[in-house]
Amino acid sequence: MTDKAFQDYYPDDLSYCYGCGRLNAEGLQIKTRWDGDETVSIVQPRPCHIAIPGYVYGGLIASAIDCHSTGTAAAAAYRAEGREMGSEPAKRFVTASLKVDYVRPTPLGVPLEVRGRVKEVKGRKVTVESTLSAAGEICARGEVVAVEMPDHLMPGARGRSGS
Amino acid sequence: MTDKAFQDYYPDDLSYCYGCGRLNAEGLQIKTRWDGDETVSIVQPRPCHIAIPGYVYGGLIASAIDCHSTGTAAAAAYRAEGREMGSEPAKRFVTASLKVDYVRPTPLGVPLEVRGRVKEVKGRKVTVESTLSAAGEICARGEVVAVEMPDHLMPGARGRSGS
Repeated sequence: MTDKAFQDYYPDDLSYCYGCGRLNAEGLQIKTRWDGDETVSIVQPRPCHIAIPGYVYGGLIASAIDCHSTGTAAAAAYRAEGREMGSEPAKRFVTASLKVDYVRPTPLGVPLEVRGRVKEVKGRKVTVESTLSAAGEICARGEVVAVEMPDHLMPGARGRSGS
Repeated sequence: MTDKAFQDYYPDDLSYCYGCGRLNAEGLQIKTRWDGDETVSIVQPRPCHIAIPGYVYGGLIASAIDCHSTGTAAAAAYRAEGREMGSEPAKRFVTASLKVDYVRPTPLGVPLEVRGRVKEVKGRKVTVESTLSAAGEICARGEVVAVEMPDHLMPGARGRSGS
């Protein structure tokens, strides 16, 4: 796996995401990297991210799959163009749709591994399939359709007054 | 709308959910109530629940739809049996699948309204459709398949050692 995570390349203005922003001190700070043709994120839920005693909250699982997938989409888009992730013009993706199937209860207290695979890159749209595992067992499966962020939402294209 | 929320009837052991548990001090404490044949939750994201400046994080939206829908499923199951929510035996639902379509960016700083409708009650399975709106505009649509919590996960049916 490469050392620097996809999210480490995001410009500061786009690094406040609760799920994966490196500048959001209260957030989950999810980091995603290539592992061959797959992408991997390790997520450590906090004790408060509970559903019922002993198990992880489904919203946290959805959040992990979401940020893992938009990060994967960005990395795949750069790779499809044969470009390094930090190069200009910057590419960032937002979620158009998110689907999670909860296969079994996810135990709380162990790191979760999200593994993604790019199913399709089509124009500005990337579809990412993923699994979320705990202690080697798949607990959830995800599919995210991510779309390239519209220009008017990219930093520099607008003032901060709308923020 | 009725005064007491569905989640206020959950037994203490099942009230620690990050999304809707009244005993999770760090959680979102989502509350859901009937409004005729629909159900309504009002959710107030915190400043940290940001995606990009000015907009709500998609994982928070998924979380709101998730807890709104499992609460709606429980209330619908009681209603289908003609029982009051606090009556025994207790019914609680977990998420089997969650689908969210993000229709437009959701502005941060205003309360979000989630409105649900029971699409189907079939045995132990309830399907809930919902919308999430900000300032009167629909920003996301959700569909959740919720299933009645397996007996071995209900409080009293197991020791706390697995927690």
